[in-house]
Amino acid sequence: MNEMDDRTNTITENDLNRFCTEIFIKLDLPDAEARIVADSLAEADLRGVHSHGVVRFPVYVRRLQAGVFNARPDIRVTRETRTTAVLDGDNGMGQLVSQRAMELTIEKAKEGDCVWVSVFNSNHNGTEAYFAEMALEHDMIGFCYTVGGINHVAPWGGAEAMLGNNPFAVAIPSGEQFPVVLDMACSVAARGKVNVAAARGEPIPEGWCTDAQGRPTTDPHEALKGFVLPMAGAKGYALTTVIGMLSTMLSGGAFGTDVTHLYDDFDRPQNIGHLLGVLPVASFVGVAEFKKRMDKGIRDIKNVKKAPGVDEIFLPGEREYRTLIERRRSGIPLAIGTVDELEELSSEFRVPFRSTD
Amino acid sequence: MNEMDDRTNTITENDLNRFCTEIFIKLDLPDAEARIVADSLAEADLRGVHSHGVVRFPVYVRRLQAGVFNARPDIRVTRETRTTAVLDGDNGMGQLVSQRAMELTIEKAKEGDCVWVSVFNSNHNGTEAYFAEMALEHDMIGFCYTVGGINHVAPWGGAEAMLGNNPFAVAIPSGEQFPVVLDMACSVAARGKVNVAAARGEPIPEGWCTDAQGRPTTDPHEALKGFVLPMAGAKGYALTTVIGMLSTMLSGGAFGTDVTHLYDDFDRPQNIGHLLGVLPVASFVGVAEFKKRMDKGIRDIKNVKKAPGVDEIFLPGEREYRTLIERRRSGIPLAIGTVDELEELSSEFRVPFRSTD
Repeated sequence: MNEMDDRTNTITENDLNRFCTEIFIKLDLPDAEARIVADSLAEADLRGVHSHGVVRFPVYVRRLQAGVFNARPDIRVTRETRTTAVLDGDNGMGQLVSQRAMELTIEKAKEGDCVWVSVFNSNHNGTEAYFAEMALEHDMIGFCYTVGGINHVAPWGGAEAMLGNNPFAVAIPSGEQFPVVLDMACSVAARGKVNVAAARGEPIPEGWCTDAQGRPTTDPHEALKGFVLPMAGAKGYALTTVIGMLSTMLSGGAFGTDVTHLYDDFDRPQNIGHLLGVLPVASFVGVAEFKKRMDKGIRDIKNVKKAPGVDEIFLPGEREYRTLIERRRSGIPLAIGTVDELEELSSEFRVPFRSTD
Repeated sequence: MNEMDDRTNTITENDLNRFCTEIFIKLDLPDAEARIVADSLAEADLRGVHSHGVVRFPVYVRRLQAGVFNARPDIRVTRETRTTAVLDGDNGMGQLVSQRAMELTIEKAKEGDCVWVSVFNSNHNGTEAYFAEMALEHDMIGFCYTVGGINHVAPWGGAEAMLGNNPFAVAIPSGEQFPVVLDMACSVAARGKVNVAAARGEPIPEGWCTDAQGRPTTDPHEALKGFVLPMAGAKGYALTTVIGMLSTMLSGGAFGTDVTHLYDDFDRPQNIGHLLGVLPVASFVGVAEFKKRMDKGIRDIKNVKKAPGVDEIFLPGEREYRTLIERRRSGIPLAIGTVDELEELSSEFRVPFRSTD
């Protein structure tokens, strides 16, 4: 995805955070919860993962207005053992429910156990990395699996969407190097990137999507009506199936025919499921030794001979950390289409989009 | 991979099992351990996963002869908490070490905990599904991650192999339907399939591999000297990196520059690492309810509208279960190249290849 270099579309982290927080508060979220969701959205854009940043803000606003997100959920544990829990998100925003779920996972793991928490009655939660990474400061490996909010992947050999483009993240602590953070969905490209292309008025590459009739397309608007193609064919299909099942079967989240549509169905809660887990490093090996191993492994990869035209090898998540550091300083470049939508919301809610407005 | 339909290359499960077991015993494995490894190899071929079946038997024999596999390992726990363990495989065969590791994982999880066991000083262990599936009869979800026995994947942007084509498996219990079992490596195709193609004298498809100079090739022999291409480009690179780290960093298994070569390096033990884990279903939800959910999800996928020319949709692992049932009855078709190698071993060890020989 090409970044805009038109600086008039740049917004600071603070402004973006404040803007989303204030609108969420006007939509009845408590202050602290509004901040959590806004922070998660802004961080996606800071990290360059625009597909899961404020490009999703308008649909969240619409769902809150429609009353199909619960602005003040009573998130509670419905079943619990010393190393497991099931969490009912009470139809709260997915970022809030997922953060609570990961806090619970980490808290339960502080005695040194592997802990997994399964979630239902949640909603679209943005980037999985955000929650997996919460484990890092506690010297734990973090996992986050989620079922997508739309069925737009056809089973391999099928001509009907029955699976989400289900994403997952794994975050592994390191020492002097950036942590290693995998965050991927199972399609050739995340559907959010199709949203970004549509907002930018840019075509999408061949091989990403088909239209509603199953024909290949580079038109992002046609693609949004069609199917997303799994990466690596049958492998991507298998992976998205298993991630979807891990995210829903333990908790009772919606899967298959029970999945509703994030953008089209404002009548029913989505009952999105997640599965979050941590492995506490110190239960396996001294934390210092683990970090030394990680740093060595990272250096081994970074130091390989480069292909022609390549300046540097990046570990999973490294580009995102670097982009975050740079954008904390210089601001977040947003697509014109996204800025237009945010400015409409600015007028509607009488919340200034920039602090200088 | 096309199956041979030349029936003279068909061998029964019993014969294959007996043949491998007897040779392993001649190579000083205890009877029970010989059976475990032979069973795991035969099951891969029964399931149609020839890339990890007896095609690997000759190199295992050579490594045992070279003394670089320990035929009688003292597999022991070096660190343990109630939900974790680190296992030293003492350079035993990977199938044996992994089976012991998964038995330990399941045993520790019987109180209802999520348990993860990290392994070092192991070896190439064949199909990850075999170990993940051990969880199924205990109504647990099973995970198995492994680092590959050869660095033949270049980091994204790199021109030097520094990563294995690291595989992982997830097995999820079901009710009336076949369990859902994902087992995949991170390349476009498993390197084992390149071995099978080389044994069959067949070209490999474009896009699987490059030669040693990084040029695309369809010659399996050139490919075996070169790099395996990650699936879905940077995503496959990220996935294989993270699977490799999960498999080695908690245990101290070899990663990066410490990885030796399964086929070329007979001087040093490989110190292969694995990570095995289970989530006990009953700690999250009643097992009957879970299986009902799984069966419904499986039916949702199988019942979608089919693409032109497609007769049936298969869940991950379903084809392998069906192939296993069919081959238990009708025998295992082996590639001529593989049969030739096994017949050489038959002469060398004076162990008949078929019970009718």
